[in-house]
Amino acid sequence: MKVYLDNNATTIVDPSVKAVMDPFLVEKYGNPNSLHAYAGETHPHIKTAMEKIYAGIHANRQDSVVITSCATESNNWVLKSIYFEQILTGKKNHIIVSEVEHPSVMATARFIESLGCKVTYLPINAEGLIEAESVRDAITTKTALVSVMWANNETGAIFPVQEIGEICAEHKVLFHTDAVQAIGKTPVDVQSFNVDYLTFSAHKFHGPKGVGALYIKKGKELTPLFHGGSQMGGHRSGTLNVPGIVGMGKAMEQAIDALDFEMSEIKEMRDDFEDALLEIPDTFVVTPRRRRTPNTILISFRGIEGESMLWDLNRAGIGASTGSACASEDLEANSVMEAIGADKDLAHTAIRFSLSRYTTQEEIDYTLEVVKKAVLRLREISSSYAYAPEGHNSGLTVGH
Amino acid sequence: MKVYLDNNATTIVDPSVKAVMDPFLVEKYGNPNSLHAYAGETHPHIKTAMEKIYAGIHANRQDSVVITSCATESNNWVLKSIYFEQILTGKKNHIIVSEVEHPSVMATARFIESLGCKVTYLPINAEGLIEAESVRDAITTKTALVSVMWANNETGAIFPVQEIGEICAEHKVLFHTDAVQAIGKTPVDVQSFNVDYLTFSAHKFHGPKGVGALYIKKGKELTPLFHGGSQMGGHRSGTLNVPGIVGMGKAMEQAIDALDFEMSEIKEMRDDFEDALLEIPDTFVVTPRRRRTPNTILISFRGIEGESMLWDLNRAGIGASTGSACASEDLEANSVMEAIGADKDLAHTAIRFSLSRYTTQEEIDYTLEVVKKAVLRLREISSSYAYAPEGHNSGLTVGH
Repeated sequence: MKVYLDNNATTIVDPSVKAVMDPFLVEKYGNPNSLHAYAGETHPHIKTAMEKIYAGIHANRQDSVVITSCATESNNWVLKSIYFEQILTGKKNHIIVSEVEHPSVMATARFIESLGCKVTYLPINAEGLIEAESVRDAITTKTALVSVMWANNETGAIFPVQEIGEICAEHKVLFHTDAVQAIGKTPVDVQSFNVDYLTFSAHKFHGPKGVGALYIKKGKELTPLFHGGSQMGGHRSGTLNVPGIVGMGKAMEQAIDALDFEMSEIKEMRDDFEDALLEIPDTFVVTPRRRRTPNTILISFRGIEGESMLWDLNRAGIGASTGSACASEDLEANSVMEAIGADKDLAHTAIRFSLSRYTTQEEIDYTLEVVKKAVLRLREISSSYAYAPEGHNSGLTVGH
Repeated sequence: MKVYLDNNATTIVDPSVKAVMDPFLVEKYGNPNSLHAYAGETHPHIKTAMEKIYAGIHANRQDSVVITSCATESNNWVLKSIYFEQILTGKKNHIIVSEVEHPSVMATARFIESLGCKVTYLPINAEGLIEAESVRDAITTKTALVSVMWANNETGAIFPVQEIGEICAEHKVLFHTDAVQAIGKTPVDVQSFNVDYLTFSAHKFHGPKGVGALYIKKGKELTPLFHGGSQMGGHRSGTLNVPGIVGMGKAMEQAIDALDFEMSEIKEMRDDFEDALLEIPDTFVVTPRRRRTPNTILISFRGIEGESMLWDLNRAGIGASTGSACASEDLEANSVMEAIGADKDLAHTAIRFSLSRYTTQEEIDYTLEVVKKAVLRLREISSSYAYAPEGHNSGLTVGH
């Protein structure tokens, strides 16, 4: 059996998404910016897709939703634009990010820090959550931007973007949220709270790789990351990726249609799976379920290296993760677990299972059996588990 | 009949390119950076594609070819990285570009100019060509970068990148060339001359939109434009666009296979077409054929607004252009014609026909008839043509 439980890394493209993309390679291949019928025949399809994308996040017509190549581009764009507009010019000197942002925010923050910008890295608490008040404490009169993700890719923890947005509005500080893990998993309505910039990416909600977006609130224009031919209203130049945009539109429509299913059926499947996993002795989940996206479990198996578990799972046809795929090649400890302050052994034992609307109960049952066998096998050969004192304090509590 | 003669704007995706991309949406959708079989099954296909891309430009294994989302990204990356590394740090204060670069170089140059960098805009001569010696004259001890395109998108003019590369090497100045219009039209061998950075884009050679690349010579690393998860060896973060990369590899292989055909059969078809067009009175082509890519004609029809001609062509099912699609929405005069110093009327009369290996003789014959009829119709209603003195000096000579 093949089981894919790494949907926070990327997702299968919905066959109906592929179907709407298909005509825009060999048949309708025109450059939308040209002045002839080959261009014109793409326009209604791009318009329809953009309408679906706007509707998906409840963007106002006066706002801009700018198509990018991925969330990494969108995140780099916001932070680097703020650098050019506010830091380099000396207007402000400070930004705030959480310490568990995606590498595309984290590495960009470090880059502009190297250019002289002060950066506050907000800590997460023992439940893996950001406390909104910590944003208030960190804001100074020189703060240009707060960038805090909506939902964490590793734990699924949902951060208090509504409260953070309010605090930013009070202090007239720009607010960006990386909502890559939120779309299709929790309702996203940019008009329901104060947010200036919001990042998302098609391949996280059953759309194609190579296409993302940045929502920009009306009046909060950014210096482009891509200067050039003024596509996308001058916000982001470059020939439009027509199949990508059309695919993203369809994927967004479907993500919204499937949201209730994700938040009920998939959540229930996830919860039952998690309950069963937690019956295995010495297992730990950090973030309470009610504060998490409905599809994600980050669970630690004391004494078992995450990579060893992945190996056993993979041999059985199951794809899971030890954390962010964008940081997986270096085989470091899970960064969220480290940020929580888990002891070093435990930080290396985290496994992330992330479900999708394609996940079946049969797949979950099979995975549970494989995990149980793997735990037995790996703990038998684990020196750290064999010698750990019973009831050893991990610094963690079990979250529900 | 439908005829596509706007291949410098974008190209049809070769059906065999689409075929190799197809499995990487619904079937093999893993994130290559994950640690399981869903990732692993993409690796050999990415490797094969990268080998084809390296081979296509004769890159050395020690060089980097970094996949980007488009040429606009690649061009922005080079210029902005040079800004961060050399201009912002005060090491250098000057870059050199031609005055007919693609908007993605031109607008980026203007952006870094607005931040205090000096920019020399090299003029083109009456034949639409850059003279290599003008680069030597412009270089100062404070010059960080020369960026001159390999082949111009509007005229097809091939610029002397070999000589410019030599001059840059002599003066130890970095050299970047936007080779978007060169791949598949003229041999591109990065080892045969001095070049540090070279931009190209799949959708210009029958590959998909949304994927481009930047060649970086060994030892000439750049500050990333996309910081993040360290994909692409840390050069360019962001989840890999697997279908895009696989498609680009196949498209590159085919472009190389078809190069002789483009340089012989397509060139001959273009030459015959051009001869026939030049038999129409008061028509002008600027750049000599031997100094042009084999597929491109930029021709002026005195007295006929380019947009009017496009309209007649479009009504007959023919897609052509007045210049760069990346600058087409503003309906300005053709920028290359303006740069040459053509009078204002004539600068508005340029039409670009760009062929591809898919262009047939039947399509060309049909287009010629449509053009002839359009010229008659439009000159009859053209006030500027009716009143122009016979033999009026346009400032242009006919190029062959």
